[in-house]
Amino acid sequence: MHQNKSNAVDVAAEVGGGTNDFAPAPIGAGMGLRGVERWLARRMLSYLHDPPIRIVLWNGEEVACSRESPVARVVMRDRGALYRLISDPDFQFGELYSSGRLTIEGDLMAFLDATYRSTSANGTYRGYLSDWFHRPRLNTARRARENVHQHYDIGNDFYRLWLDEAMVYTCAYFPTRDATLEAAQQAKLEHVCRKLRLTPGERVVEAGCGWGSLAMYMAEHHGVKVKAYNISHQQIIFARERAAAKGLADRVEFIEDDYRNITGTYDAFVSVGMLEHVGPKDYPTLGRVIDRCLTDSGRGLIHSIGRNRPLRMNAWIATRIFPGGYTPAISEMTRILEPYSLSVLDVENLRLHYALTLEHWLARFERSTDKVRQMFDERFVRMWRLYLAGSLMAFATGWMQLFQITFARPLNNDLPLTRGHLYRTGK
Amino acid sequence: MHQNKSNAVDVAAEVGGGTNDFAPAPIGAGMGLRGVERWLARRMLSYLHDPPIRIVLWNGEEVACSRESPVARVVMRDRGALYRLISDPDFQFGELYSSGRLTIEGDLMAFLDATYRSTSANGTYRGYLSDWFHRPRLNTARRARENVHQHYDIGNDFYRLWLDEAMVYTCAYFPTRDATLEAAQQAKLEHVCRKLRLTPGERVVEAGCGWGSLAMYMAEHHGVKVKAYNISHQQIIFARERAAAKGLADRVEFIEDDYRNITGTYDAFVSVGMLEHVGPKDYPTLGRVIDRCLTDSGRGLIHSIGRNRPLRMNAWIATRIFPGGYTPAISEMTRILEPYSLSVLDVENLRLHYALTLEHWLARFERSTDKVRQMFDERFVRMWRLYLAGSLMAFATGWMQLFQITFARPLNNDLPLTRGHLYRTGK
Repeated sequence: MHQNKSNAVDVAAEVGGGTNDFAPAPIGAGMGLRGVERWLARRMLSYLHDPPIRIVLWNGEEVACSRESPVARVVMRDRGALYRLISDPDFQFGELYSSGRLTIEGDLMAFLDATYRSTSANGTYRGYLSDWFHRPRLNTARRARENVHQHYDIGNDFYRLWLDEAMVYTCAYFPTRDATLEAAQQAKLEHVCRKLRLTPGERVVEAGCGWGSLAMYMAEHHGVKVKAYNISHQQIIFARERAAAKGLADRVEFIEDDYRNITGTYDAFVSVGMLEHVGPKDYPTLGRVIDRCLTDSGRGLIHSIGRNRPLRMNAWIATRIFPGGYTPAISEMTRILEPYSLSVLDVENLRLHYALTLEHWLARFERSTDKVRQMFDERFVRMWRLYLAGSLMAFATGWMQLFQITFARPLNNDLPLTRGHLYRTGK
Repeated sequence: MHQNKSNAVDVAAEVGGGTNDFAPAPIGAGMGLRGVERWLARRMLSYLHDPPIRIVLWNGEEVACSRESPVARVVMRDRGALYRLISDPDFQFGELYSSGRLTIEGDLMAFLDATYRSTSANGTYRGYLSDWFHRPRLNTARRARENVHQHYDIGNDFYRLWLDEAMVYTCAYFPTRDATLEAAQQAKLEHVCRKLRLTPGERVVEAGCGWGSLAMYMAEHHGVKVKAYNISHQQIIFARERAAAKGLADRVEFIEDDYRNITGTYDAFVSVGMLEHVGPKDYPTLGRVIDRCLTDSGRGLIHSIGRNRPLRMNAWIATRIFPGGYTPAISEMTRILEPYSLSVLDVENLRLHYALTLEHWLARFERSTDKVRQMFDERFVRMWRLYLAGSLMAFATGWMQLFQITFARPLNNDLPLTRGHLYRTGK
């Protein structure tokens, strides 16, 4: 299949060009190599559909499958690393990379690009062995709190190092490719508000509000009253302080509680970047919450990472980065709305915007690795580098999508005929 | 539930105001009425969730459930009509209305509006009895040809009476509410072309091309080469004549064949108003055809009537109007694309545009009923009035949707960042 070169990827390769790997553990020189190990390394490459990469074993020997010149080399620094990788590749790649038992010689971005493209172009989903080791975690209210704590409560100071000033930790919206991250995040907030067609005095509920940027933007720029729910303690504290400092505390209420406990009725329901944490077993619950809280003239918007078809999360991401996470296909997302005949008005795929967003995040992260290492340790730096770079490449190669779904009650005819209002310049 | 009054419906009520019913069969005066029949008539109204309508029985007696003043009266002109209606309401309403054994006193549009709103607001789908009598027909290639013949081959002269000049028999796109039908159909063709981002010299395949307007528009205004498939003989003949007259025969090839037999590869796949005839059992087939014929940089668009959730077609429509027809929910439509990881870029719901389109069609139809009666008979006039008026109200009350889904290959990054290009004025 023709390899469709992307602009986003080209830019990404430049930005990510500084992520050449290093070698924290010594090569196990002198350790013998068995014939079966060479064969296993080759199996590993064919499992990835033979991308142009090579595997370097602990004695320095190189294994190749593709005849193309390699864009990167994967160095297995000890025998155990190879056996671990083979036993559970989706999970162990991240583990071994984080600990430095597996390193990348050459450009990490080029390596990720090659493997994602190869899988994206050839991949039919095969029930990976790792699926059985890593069953999705259930998101009970208590478990959800633990899961969210693990990712979002690791310190606002850490996120401040590489997010935009407004601390928006979801896909931005780039009106043009060269917009700054700050401008693109503000444009995203405005884009969401326009899709919801907010008018002053309306009541809005937000499920999963992060550090509160959207809630405050809606109140400040569209004159609405907002109740914003979040179960991350650190984020809620931060959001309340910001709202007070901005004089918005009377119009934005931050509630430290689960989306399942939303009460009241609202003119708009909005959720940006929470669905990834809900998990498909709780989609009916989310649907019930939306139906319960939306007025007859209400509108809603769900913004979430998604897939082109139903697929399990990568096991490492679902364990180390987003425990309990799941990124749905559109057919799964719309099943949240179908039982209540909520009418889908608009779906927009912002995939390339997430690739651009991640380029900015990764570049800022790389400029702050000394500080991150001081806050945490080298393993943490490698883990987050892989997560950010891997996500960038997943969006750039069409492996992941970003869907914004706008919806309303079926009998609501107070709808604009065209979507032109989203593209007016100025306010 | 609050009855959300729609603009579209208000306009519709004016346009459709001329469709007051008449009484072709005499009331069966003197026929006795049994107590059970009064009870059955009341059951009928409660089955419809007690809309503000009354049933008038053959002896002139009125049955009411709602305490609101009635917007219309349903007159059962003989005992058998009531029993038929009760036995299989979804199918028999259309049958009895067409034959005149059931008539509407008052405004047909107001009657349809009231019943759709009542069902739309209260309805959870109940496995209607009629589902069992009217199982969906399979659309084998031969059966598909019969089904299409039954609707589209009844005579181009008939359709010319009430369609626009370009003979576009699908939802138009009204940039403004007061656009003419002619302008709105041209705007729809342009909207589709912009979504596909056609460039001169590209190859396009169209599945289900009607009388050929889109194929010719694409060739004439966007400089592409088109192969357009259709199994309606009358439509293909008409389309070929038009293309020859316009000097487009070298750029547009009309092929009288089933979409399953599409050959070749194309830069764009487009299908406007065919999916309704495919039926969900053949969605995997359609997906295979799309995957087979689309290049790596190819884009696609499917335009189809849809639903807010999976629901059977109305039995009468699926028998008398569109045999083998089915209107899918988004979760069903995306299953065409998922097996091939085709990436959904955009979904737009044009529901209100179809209500406006049908207002124009119905008004033109009503102005031509004398001619239609000459071409066919009174039963045909009543059948088509009910189909057009019922469809109008189904869109106006959120019972039916119109989805345009745009998609591309997962690795295709040659995509505009925003949808602003759809809303530029001029070409």
